[in-house]
Amino acid sequence: MTPAVPARRGARQAAAKVKVDVVAAIGIKRDGGVLSDEQIDALIAGYVAGAIPDYQMSALLMAICWRGLNEAETLRLTQAMVASGDVLDPGAKLGRRIVDKHSTGGVGDKASLALGPIVAACGVPLGKMSGRGLGHTGGTLDKLESIPGFTVEIDESRFIKQVRDIGLAIAGQTGDLVPADKMLYALRDVTGTVESIPLIAASIMSKKIAGGADAIVLDVKVGSGAFMKDVEHARVLADQMIAIGHGSGREVRVLLTNMDRPLGRAVGNALEVREVVELLHDRGPRDLRELVFTVAGMLLALSDLEISEEEGEERARSAVATGAALAMWERWIRAQGGNPDAPLELGPVEHTVLAHEGGTITEIDALTVGLAAVRLGAGRRTKQDTVDHGVGIELHASVGDQIAAGDPLLTVYARDDDSAHEAASSVLARVRIVGGAAGSRARKPSPVVIERRG
Amino acid sequence: MTPAVPARRGARQAAAKVKVDVVAAIGIKRDGGVLSDEQIDALIAGYVAGAIPDYQMSALLMAICWRGLNEAETLRLTQAMVASGDVLDPGAKLGRRIVDKHSTGGVGDKASLALGPIVAACGVPLGKMSGRGLGHTGGTLDKLESIPGFTVEIDESRFIKQVRDIGLAIAGQTGDLVPADKMLYALRDVTGTVESIPLIAASIMSKKIAGGADAIVLDVKVGSGAFMKDVEHARVLADQMIAIGHGSGREVRVLLTNMDRPLGRAVGNALEVREVVELLHDRGPRDLRELVFTVAGMLLALSDLEISEEEGEERARSAVATGAALAMWERWIRAQGGNPDAPLELGPVEHTVLAHEGGTITEIDALTVGLAAVRLGAGRRTKQDTVDHGVGIELHASVGDQIAAGDPLLTVYARDDDSAHEAASSVLARVRIVGGAAGSRARKPSPVVIERRG
Repeated sequence: MTPAVPARRGARQAAAKVKVDVVAAIGIKRDGGVLSDEQIDALIAGYVAGAIPDYQMSALLMAICWRGLNEAETLRLTQAMVASGDVLDPGAKLGRRIVDKHSTGGVGDKASLALGPIVAACGVPLGKMSGRGLGHTGGTLDKLESIPGFTVEIDESRFIKQVRDIGLAIAGQTGDLVPADKMLYALRDVTGTVESIPLIAASIMSKKIAGGADAIVLDVKVGSGAFMKDVEHARVLADQMIAIGHGSGREVRVLLTNMDRPLGRAVGNALEVREVVELLHDRGPRDLRELVFTVAGMLLALSDLEISEEEGEERARSAVATGAALAMWERWIRAQGGNPDAPLELGPVEHTVLAHEGGTITEIDALTVGLAAVRLGAGRRTKQDTVDHGVGIELHASVGDQIAAGDPLLTVYARDDDSAHEAASSVLARVRIVGGAAGSRARKPSPVVIERRG
Repeated sequence: MTPAVPARRGARQAAAKVKVDVVAAIGIKRDGGVLSDEQIDALIAGYVAGAIPDYQMSALLMAICWRGLNEAETLRLTQAMVASGDVLDPGAKLGRRIVDKHSTGGVGDKASLALGPIVAACGVPLGKMSGRGLGHTGGTLDKLESIPGFTVEIDESRFIKQVRDIGLAIAGQTGDLVPADKMLYALRDVTGTVESIPLIAASIMSKKIAGGADAIVLDVKVGSGAFMKDVEHARVLADQMIAIGHGSGREVRVLLTNMDRPLGRAVGNALEVREVVELLHDRGPRDLRELVFTVAGMLLALSDLEISEEEGEERARSAVATGAALAMWERWIRAQGGNPDAPLELGPVEHTVLAHEGGTITEIDALTVGLAAVRLGAGRRTKQDTVDHGVGIELHASVGDQIAAGDPLLTVYARDDDSAHEAASSVLARVRIVGGAAGSRARKPSPVVIERRG
């Protein structure tokens, strides 16, 4: 072979500068080999420094999609990513053991909003940095911003002070945490290299570790509305995150939870906040309550309270039953500038669809509902989109429920009639109601928690 | 997953412009799917136009290394690459059927230099565009430039005129042939994506097709000094190139030839020219003669002479025996400004190594000799290096030959004593001489032509 054109000199020089032969490292991974700690460190540091160009990193990322990373490589990658930016230590500042929770993202997943005030009401401080939504999964920050006046942009000292004073803060990222993850994710997003379990595990865990969590509960969603479509892959992701946590001296527990159907009945920012407030009033849908109280019990058990999960779950239920969690919610919303008593704006168009037949609801497809909500404006198709907080879809019954012909099935909140009808008909196409004897025989829906790991 | 950073807008916009969803196309290949003709066309056109960035193309290239391309994809890729630039039609200009020959590159491979005058002397015009060397394999243009006065830079009209007038021209590329290949090769070289058989096949064939060849003889080198290390991979490459040729209306015949040892006895630019002149005087090493006359017979049989390969080989041997080929060589060298009578400059240092023991030579490792020649300055480590035409390694015996202790084994021509000794000792470490009864029993060396395909 006699290639006809000069190799890109910049790349060769850059590779020399960062003391790693990038092409050789790509070749090792391409051929199924193992990268050394030194290679991984130099690759990440070089990429963040701009010395390794995107076109080499994207080739390496695709080779990782192909060949994977072993446990040691995944751990080292995570640690190299953590080392690329600031590392927070709120535990030292607060004199407390720090617990955190992360969800891999789903449709109608407002659990973090409820968990914050519940856990804080039980005496365990929670300072949580969250993200915005992209695609069919919503983001905690977008949901909070549907509360009039609420701000997610608070600096680190205010963040720490708020956690110390009232026990709870949820905000956008403070400091320059894991710039390597920001850069790598942006590149993966445009190069078809998102779908790699070790890269996903390293991305999630690097942010939790840099944020200073001592113990982490991970909610790995599984099903049509989740990134992980089947339990097998979700287990691999869970176990890789557990290994990273242990390798980094963090306690990690994982729940695999159902995302074939939306979580709860509300999908859309203000609608989901309203559902959280319902839960804090000790009402709300069964599946959301099950998930929130389970995770709350785990978080409290991992905290410095030194109690069991059962005891933790008991305290969480009690904090809701007594109104302590609702009071914490109101204190927290006010602390971040919001008005918990202000009405949440919905609509303006409200379009309710009735069940055209009676029977048992056996399917409400999560991905379909999530995508319909995005088209209504509740989510982002691209990062540049703005979010419409008042639109969304509210289900009046859940999978497993009996419904009679003519009962309200769902309500769409939309900007206009056209988009309301479009959303309603697309969701209806993936709602299944089974009538008669078959309906009575329909299996009970699977529980929201599929299994636990770690 | 809630990625934290905006997707690269440039990439998205570019993808829109070229009417192909690049990320989706990468995902199809990543998941083992098949790209459509339209996708392949748009990907290549978009990349050449600068609308698809390197970082997306390198991820796609790695996905191709992983999943391969099927026959239809490889053909379409080749055709899309051909369409990216000028397409020559020398056959129409000359009123002749155009034959061409390509070697995948080896150590001491000067066959093209001998084939040009032999085939032209037999009445078949040859206008060949060649490349320069990189790494341990030499390039035809570098070899020719060791002839005082010879120029490889002639424009298309002079090129065609020379082929018409004397029947032979070998030059650097004229016109803007296959810019897609130049861009893709440069990217593959720095992203660890060279090692993909369909990409190699498309690269070679796109240049031959754009150059206007009606029939092509491909010399696929196999062994330590070749890109293809084993016969199995070489066969796959051969068959893919044959399929591309047939799909494009070209006749293609392939030889798999031995590159475990150097071809002939001379490695280095002026040394190789000297060996070609020896061959044209009807002397020269057995293996080089075997290869040159075999390929010459194939080229003549593929031409418009309408003769068999046996008849072609007979005519080629006769053209050398009668001096017609040597006369053509001299006419050709003069036509491109060179002086065929001027002495070729060698050295200045000349260091001859004697055999320290007698026996049968069973190994002279091609890669070792090739790399030693590069270190002497005969080749390029990077595209920016300049070539020293006078240095190189001359073997005084070949694999399979008997040698006595004290006989000259090889001579190194070098810039200085140090590099001469370094080259000699590195080559000697991979020369094997087996003495005594074992030597007599040593197997005869395998023939240079391993097999034919197509």
